Amino acid sequence: MNKDNRVINAAILGFGTVGSGVYKISCDMKEELLHRTGAYLNIKKVLVRDKTKKREGLDMSLVTDSWSDICNDPEIEIVIELMGGISPAKEYVLEALNAGKQVVTANKDLLAEYGAEVREAANLKHCDMQFEAAVAGAIPIIRPLKQSMAGNRITEIIGIVNGTTNFILTKMSETGMSYDQALAEATRLGFAEADPTADVEGLDAGRKMAIMSSIAFNSRVLFSDVYTEGITKISADDIRYAREFGYVIKLLGLAKITDDGIECKVHPMLIPEEHPLASVRNANNAVFVHGDAMDDAMFMGKGAGQMPTASAVMGDVVDVMRDIVYDSCGRVGSSCYKEERVKDITESSTKFFMRIKAEDRPGVLANIASVLGNNGVSIAQVVQKSRSEGIADLVIITDEVVEKHFDDALKVFKGLSVVKEVSGVIRVY
Amino acid sequence: MNKDNRVINAAILGFGTVGSGVYKISCDMKEELLHRTGAYLNIKKVLVRDKTKKREGLDMSLVTDSWSDICNDPEIEIVIELMGGISPAKEYVLEALNAGKQVVTANKDLLAEYGAEVREAANLKHCDMQFEAAVAGAIPIIRPLKQSMAGNRITEIIGIVNGTTNFILTKMSETGMSYDQALAEATRLGFAEADPTADVEGLDAGRKMAIMSSIAFNSRVLFSDVYTEGITKISADDIRYAREFGYVIKLLGLAKITDDGIECKVHPMLIPEEHPLASVRNANNAVFVHGDAMDDAMFMGKGAGQMPTASAVMGDVVDVMRDIVYDSCGRVGSSCYKEERVKDITESSTKFFMRIKAEDRPGVLANIASVLGNNGVSIAQVVQKSRSEGIADLVIITDEVVEKHFDDALKVFKGLSVVKEVSGVIRVY
Repeated sequence: MNKDNRVINAAILGFGTVGSGVYKISCDMKEELLHRTGAYLNIKKVLVRDKTKKREGLDMSLVTDSWSDICNDPEIEIVIELMGGISPAKEYVLEALNAGKQVVTANKDLLAEYGAEVREAANLKHCDMQFEAAVAGAIPIIRPLKQSMAGNRITEIIGIVNGTTNFILTKMSETGMSYDQALAEATRLGFAEADPTADVEGLDAGRKMAIMSSIAFNSRVLFSDVYTEGITKISADDIRYAREFGYVIKLLGLAKITDDGIECKVHPMLIPEEHPLASVRNANNAVFVHGDAMDDAMFMGKGAGQMPTASAVMGDVVDVMRDIVYDSCGRVGSSCYKEERVKDITESSTKFFMRIKAEDRPGVLANIASVLGNNGVSIAQVVQKSRSEGIADLVIITDEVVEKHFDDALKVFKGLSVVKEVSGVIRVY
Repeated sequence: MNKDNRVINAAILGFGTVGSGVYKISCDMKEELLHRTGAYLNIKKVLVRDKTKKREGLDMSLVTDSWSDICNDPEIEIVIELMGGISPAKEYVLEALNAGKQVVTANKDLLAEYGAEVREAANLKHCDMQFEAAVAGAIPIIRPLKQSMAGNRITEIIGIVNGTTNFILTKMSETGMSYDQALAEATRLGFAEADPTADVEGLDAGRKMAIMSSIAFNSRVLFSDVYTEGITKISADDIRYAREFGYVIKLLGLAKITDDGIECKVHPMLIPEEHPLASVRNANNAVFVHGDAMDDAMFMGKGAGQMPTASAVMGDVVDVMRDIVYDSCGRVGSSCYKEERVKDITESSTKFFMRIKAEDRPGVLANIASVLGNNGVSIAQVVQKSRSEGIADLVIITDEVVEKHFDDALKVFKGLSVVKEVSGVIRVY
């Protein structure tokens, strides 16, 4: 095989931030890519919505607004899908795979919802379908989970996998800003989108956790299986109180395999200041993995941004090019060969932190503790923070408790006449 | 291809700590390996020196003391070399490759010295030659460098890649122990070998840096090219003084590509307490990589130990099995297609920290500063720590300076009559 003369043609779908970054790398690194794969990469087409629009640095002769131009071109071997969203990305990816083309995508929405369908199409045609950039941007995590850690039974993944919320929480924590102020700052600096819902409500993180869990536990986890809770209710007070107890508040994705199924959830959490994830600041992402042989490993880096995401896409493209050169496409296929149940959040166990305003008179604390205790929630720590005008401010950290029991206890507890207000109910690592 | 019935035979060379760990995983995970690769892994032979010795958990019928039993067995497709050392590991690996067998090795000594030779043999026969476990134990770093980050020009690697020295420095830092006390503790707990030279003198870390640099910069770096300086001269005082300035002392491997060549070195260094590497404690390893597209990423985990190292070996074995099933062995070949010069340490630039005892009289500081300045070394910070009996204790941190200039300046400086003692000369990040 004369690998040196081989040219592999690819098409980029979408020329937004990441698409233009991928195009830039593929132009800048022609020689390196040849050395690394044995073939030249040629971007033959770029699919855009408006083909009359001028685009900085892009050879306009490559531009098309017709998907069939790409799908029906037998010379195009790799389709790099960077449009995002479900439709028409899903149709294009499926049609590309059905046409025997290799696919690289950064589309977490698509994979977290239709991963099984897309994977099945890839398997049927023995095609590569790679998606490192869909989770945690530049951080290599999909390939390590599928390959480097394949000699392990992975039991747990904990991740800070959304840069926007980590930026907001870092600002709140380090400057005392309110949630709204920090969100405004994130928007101003381009870390938050005009509509930040998917980020701040934990949906984006939930999609990434679904994708990683499916690989780590070899069983499909859908986005709809993941419990998600965002950071919109976190107050500067919560953060201040948490710090007094030696904790930092982070939006965490948590997934683990238990005897009776998979737990997969995203919610704010107090983690000890000395935990490695506590020092992950601003828009950085980090993923912590526990495997039975390897013990703990942590991966940290840029979770978003044009070039970091493009870097992850190009890592996949290089891998696909090697597979094309060696005629081994499809060599790393589906990870999901089991059918584990995904547990409901109410079945998980955790510790809780909460702040309470209660009547300040003798016996109230005993009353509170006994009501919680009668409902199965025992108190690990309670501190009275202040008292004024007959009201005491208490902070409680519970022992580990099944979420359902805690919810039930909380209902009874909130009904107590001595309890005036319960706020800042946040889980504790 | 009926992949389900395929059995891939392998041999393990060496049944020490890691070898027995790999054997254990390969027995425990038979079904998982089939699902992950499309083939069963069968350990057909285990090469040992003394085949009469009883070995816990090992089927004795697999044991052989004859390399030719393995090398001449055409059914054995993968050789897993876990003997360590140069000879006979080198001969066995070369013979295995020449016989067309795939090789997985954890042998950093071999790769840091004879990497080119071994790689060439693998290329000639289109064989896989994988070595994730040779660097940083369980942490996936070789595969990320070769694959996930292949869309980057990697410009810098900084690593804590020796667990023994990191354990010793952590103990010294956190408990105030002397070097000798901390080494004794490390030996007692099994983190240091009976002869700790390779670890404490930075040789082990130097080998790992040579291997990573060769991949990252696409140009062969030999162990003999790497400047190594160990931690044996670090005192509890150095650590205490460093902390007063907001620094932690770590044994770092540093590699970067510059306009006029590659810098690759291992030495103790002061790093700011808030740097992510500063919080890597005990026997953990961490590798920090900078790429032009991805920006910074950090990988952290267990750098040694039976099962973590075996985990890395098995990740490679799984990858090789996939290559065998897809008939694509050799698909990720040599990374070294350039010939960069490796610079001498004297050409590097760095900042220095040092402690000085000098005569305590007016004008001495000005004298010291001007002698250093005249020799090209400017002072960033100087603090007088104490004075007694006519002697002042000074701590100096220099600006960045070419090492050669600093060495020259230090010679002149030490000759000054007012300078009584210079100690704790340590580089600063």
